[in-house]
Amino acid sequence: MNLNEIGARAKTASRLLASATSAQKDAALLAIADGLEKASGEILSANACDLSRARESGLAEAMIERLTLTEARIKNIAGGVREVAALPDPVGTIKDMSLRPNGLRIGKKSVPLGLIGVIFESRPNVGVDIAALCLKAGSAVLLRGGKEAIDSNKALASVIRRAVGEQGLNPDAVCLVEDTSRQSATDMMELTGVLDVLIPRGGKSLIDSVVQNARVPVIETGWGNCHVYADDGCDIEMAANIIYNAKCSRPSVCNALETLLVHESCAGELLPMAKKLLDAKNVEIRGCARSAIIMGGCVIPATVEDYQTEYNDYILAVKVVSSFDEAVGHINQYGSRHSEAIITNSYKNAQEFLDRVDAAAVYINASTRFTDGNEFGLGAEVGISTQKLHARGPLGLEALTSYKYIIYGDGQVRV
Amino acid sequence: MNLNEIGARAKTASRLLASATSAQKDAALLAIADGLEKASGEILSANACDLSRARESGLAEAMIERLTLTEARIKNIAGGVREVAALPDPVGTIKDMSLRPNGLRIGKKSVPLGLIGVIFESRPNVGVDIAALCLKAGSAVLLRGGKEAIDSNKALASVIRRAVGEQGLNPDAVCLVEDTSRQSATDMMELTGVLDVLIPRGGKSLIDSVVQNARVPVIETGWGNCHVYADDGCDIEMAANIIYNAKCSRPSVCNALETLLVHESCAGELLPMAKKLLDAKNVEIRGCARSAIIMGGCVIPATVEDYQTEYNDYILAVKVVSSFDEAVGHINQYGSRHSEAIITNSYKNAQEFLDRVDAAAVYINASTRFTDGNEFGLGAEVGISTQKLHARGPLGLEALTSYKYIIYGDGQVRV
Repeated sequence: MNLNEIGARAKTASRLLASATSAQKDAALLAIADGLEKASGEILSANACDLSRARESGLAEAMIERLTLTEARIKNIAGGVREVAALPDPVGTIKDMSLRPNGLRIGKKSVPLGLIGVIFESRPNVGVDIAALCLKAGSAVLLRGGKEAIDSNKALASVIRRAVGEQGLNPDAVCLVEDTSRQSATDMMELTGVLDVLIPRGGKSLIDSVVQNARVPVIETGWGNCHVYADDGCDIEMAANIIYNAKCSRPSVCNALETLLVHESCAGELLPMAKKLLDAKNVEIRGCARSAIIMGGCVIPATVEDYQTEYNDYILAVKVVSSFDEAVGHINQYGSRHSEAIITNSYKNAQEFLDRVDAAAVYINASTRFTDGNEFGLGAEVGISTQKLHARGPLGLEALTSYKYIIYGDGQVRV
Repeated sequence: MNLNEIGARAKTASRLLASATSAQKDAALLAIADGLEKASGEILSANACDLSRARESGLAEAMIERLTLTEARIKNIAGGVREVAALPDPVGTIKDMSLRPNGLRIGKKSVPLGLIGVIFESRPNVGVDIAALCLKAGSAVLLRGGKEAIDSNKALASVIRRAVGEQGLNPDAVCLVEDTSRQSATDMMELTGVLDVLIPRGGKSLIDSVVQNARVPVIETGWGNCHVYADDGCDIEMAANIIYNAKCSRPSVCNALETLLVHESCAGELLPMAKKLLDAKNVEIRGCARSAIIMGGCVIPATVEDYQTEYNDYILAVKVVSSFDEAVGHINQYGSRHSEAIITNSYKNAQEFLDRVDAAAVYINASTRFTDGNEFGLGAEVGISTQKLHARGPLGLEALTSYKYIIYGDGQVRV
């Protein structure tokens, strides 16, 4: 089947799924979870094909690790699907119902987006997570994963489609694009009138390519160049702990700290204390001249490029700033609008930081690592949006819905 | 100045405007309204240049009428700006504040979109309306009007910028792109990283071109192929009145009726009654074979193209359907997702119509003509969105905002 045919089938399924009841959707989700566990043998042998291909082609060990499924991981994936089933249905809620002077009753009813396209990279669990969220939100999904995981993705999609079908829903509600060529991704970006939204979930180059080429509405999910700014008069120990947590608890993710900004008044005390913690993970410091004077010879001089980079690694850029304004200016210039934190005891600076920093999540006295659907109480997420349109921050179930105005009249005409 | 320079200036202004207070923004809006009235001489003489060019080039009389400004129209425009000033500020509202188990307080704060680009056609008042809405919503705006109205637009923009500047805000919060070539529109579509959203406001070809070419986030505003469906057992008189109102009260607008669907059980009674009303405006009927049998020889046979067309004129397509399902199917196939109405006495069909019809506004027993920011109680609007992402239906002030997550902590780190 070519992409247009798959798209048309998924679109048809999306119309049917839109009127499925919560009970039907939840039953399908639970059937998917059970199905994944029951079919673990089938899934693991497909995964073995991916893994042997990956080893032959000399894929890096870290990538192979991400690609690998095990019985335990499949149980985890199934558990995630059950958690999605347990979330409240985001569809059908009616908000802002008002009575107009002419007697019309007008409200906004939440509705499914329709057909959601997702282009994702490597890890095979991602497709299942996303399919579960879309199904719960009443939208069909067109999944296009990476070529490394194609056999795993096929096996997982087949289990999902079987379970959905057995529960009396149209299996085309979850469609996998089996063609993993570059062209198939480009073709998806051009499915106007078919895809209601396209979400790229992966690295910067994938996202840039979608933003450049897509002719369908897009939600950009983000790469993260996140900052912590330690303000004049902040709690030094708190700052050091947050810096260590934001940088080292999981450096590979988008909400990890990349550049530390320190007010000159506390740099002398804070930087050595933070350095001591960061040394436990051998974090490489790329700092400005002032930070090098404080921390000594181990500091590599930072370039402008360092301030622009998402390292995703045990590397930290550091800059000593002379003022609060300089810190905010730096963040708004170099940040990727993802997650930004201030450590401060100043009421005024805390409020100003919240106001002036342009990002999806802005923190006072907490680690940037909390930007996550579960941590925010939204349940699972499709990704973190760094654009301002539609939804910002973690994309939970509500972000996967739209609304329609519903109007109850009794014969009103417009004068 | 080229577009990149204008864009950069407007972007800078957007950052400053984002932290302006409600009082500052309202003062600027009132100053704009006063300024427009005071400068009416200047504006009218610029408008005279547009009008004489329009006459020389043989522009249609209806278009010239739309282009024409008068003292009274300028007063109206100024009045609209004062109404926007009187609306509540959509920026800074904090919603969904919750306390997480780890003590973090997380909420969503409404923030300006940033820099909004609008490409609009012909009528010079549109630019002022949109500038006022954007300003109130704390966003800078890059306006690009049509070449027919360029002199009027320049005069209006100059009055607006002067008033904004005199109130101590950055005048670049409202920028006019003076180059009205096709290329300048295309260039706007490629201002990634500068425009936070681009809104095309005009006919189908403008919208299609933006959807095809834009690399920045877009909100599609709609053309409207709207339907009224008169259901089995409906109130015939109510149906006839609504049909007449939806078709004839203002045929040139996007929420006007284009195709009437009638259940076969009431076609015999309803169609002649509706026809009698429509005859007062000489509405041309393009109908299916069954409707022609009922209404007689005046009916022109309808083609598939008729069912796809937004006439914006005193022309009505008519189809007799055999069932509720056929009506819903027809609407979901041919509709433009704008405004759709059912006239019914059936509770079940009313609810099903609301559920199954995929459109921005779905009506029971009322005219489609109500889809409008003011009628919906939103105040003025930038346009009617027919896409599902971000905002659907009339785009009022709230649709011109985004949000950021704000997180208050006291040292939390993620485990």
